Amino acid sequence: MTDQPRFNRARNTKRALYDEATVHAILDAGMVGHVGFVAEGRPMVMPMAYARGPGCIWLHGASKARIVTLARGMPLSMTVTLLDGIVAARSGFHHSVNYRSAVVHGKGRAVTDPAELDTALQAITEHLLPGRQAEIRPMTAQERKATGVVALTIEAASAKIRSGPPVDEAGDHGLGLWGGVVPVVTALGRGIPDGHTPGDVAEPRSVGRARARFAT
Amino acid sequence: MTDQPRFNRARNTKRALYDEATVHAILDAGMVGHVGFVAEGRPMVMPMAYARGPGCIWLHGASKARIVTLARGMPLSMTVTLLDGIVAARSGFHHSVNYRSAVVHGKGRAVTDPAELDTALQAITEHLLPGRQAEIRPMTAQERKATGVVALTIEAASAKIRSGPPVDEAGDHGLGLWGGVVPVVTALGRGIPDGHTPGDVAEPRSVGRARARFAT
Repeated sequence: MTDQPRFNRARNTKRALYDEATVHAILDAGMVGHVGFVAEGRPMVMPMAYARGPGCIWLHGASKARIVTLARGMPLSMTVTLLDGIVAARSGFHHSVNYRSAVVHGKGRAVTDPAELDTALQAITEHLLPGRQAEIRPMTAQERKATGVVALTIEAASAKIRSGPPVDEAGDHGLGLWGGVVPVVTALGRGIPDGHTPGDVAEPRSVGRARARFAT
Repeated sequence: MTDQPRFNRARNTKRALYDEATVHAILDAGMVGHVGFVAEGRPMVMPMAYARGPGCIWLHGASKARIVTLARGMPLSMTVTLLDGIVAARSGFHHSVNYRSAVVHGKGRAVTDPAELDTALQAITEHLLPGRQAEIRPMTAQERKATGVVALTIEAASAKIRSGPPVDEAGDHGLGLWGGVVPVVTALGRGIPDGHTPGDVAEPRSVGRARARFAT
């Protein structure tokens, strides 16, 4: 285990927040994280499903995926960004976006303990569809072998948030121009059953719970 | 200028596409990119506004932002991910997400030429709000100085797409369980004018154009 993670202030910004609750709320609201690692000196950024674990983020990959085979002990990061709006100002300079973003830095650790592997895989499924685990069949030993989970052990984390209207030059307020925010909305639709779903089987409750997370 | 960029196949996946048109369509549909760079051996991933330029991606930052001051000649990447759905299978193993993702790799180049800087800044604003440039006042020399643009010169790019229903084990089809896709929808709401917008000024046309991009 590492030391207690730092929830630290990001550099060069007035938009930085560093409390654990803010970081966790953003991680919980996100669906996909952008995971960074270095391979042959190059910065790699991969979208991955994830879940929060104790002092770590569990990341899901195939057991032969490059990030899983490379991740042992190497520096990793994950950024989760929730886009909330486009900020339309009266000058190009003050255009911006409203967003909530969390960044986690740490090291990779291959999850090999069978109990942690099961907990992690279930957490990743539950993160997308709360309660789904109880609706499906259990995992087989063969499937467990084919799945790779990397734990990003959290050493530091931070959040950045921009919200509210444009911050225009005072002199531009009298131009008679429209300034404001265009909301960006993310929502889940009704589940579309596949051809193997019996006609009398309703959309499962996990889907409704997932949809409720995004209802505003 | 670099050689002609490669639009190459990603490793270890049946979901890789590599044609230029697919990559461009994903970049055009995204609003925020996740930019990767290496600082002190650590992988950094930052959400940034962007636009496609000739053979490059223009990235917007403050002139003192770390990525702008560090980016000259260093390896950079950008990943844009569009989440389309949650794939609910009959086993945890086959749960997945439907998405379109483009990855661009290359090198950073600080944009210093005034003409390219103007073109890049306008393109970044237009990418979020098509036609906005004609609705606002021109940029001042002081603002131009305070803005940093990095060009990510494209050396290689690839796309990955997952679509369609869950791919379950044939033996699980008879379980009588619900399997299918939960659509993830991203949309823009009506623009919310700020307190400096005269009551008789309508939502600008650029906002309607941006909203139309996401209408399905």
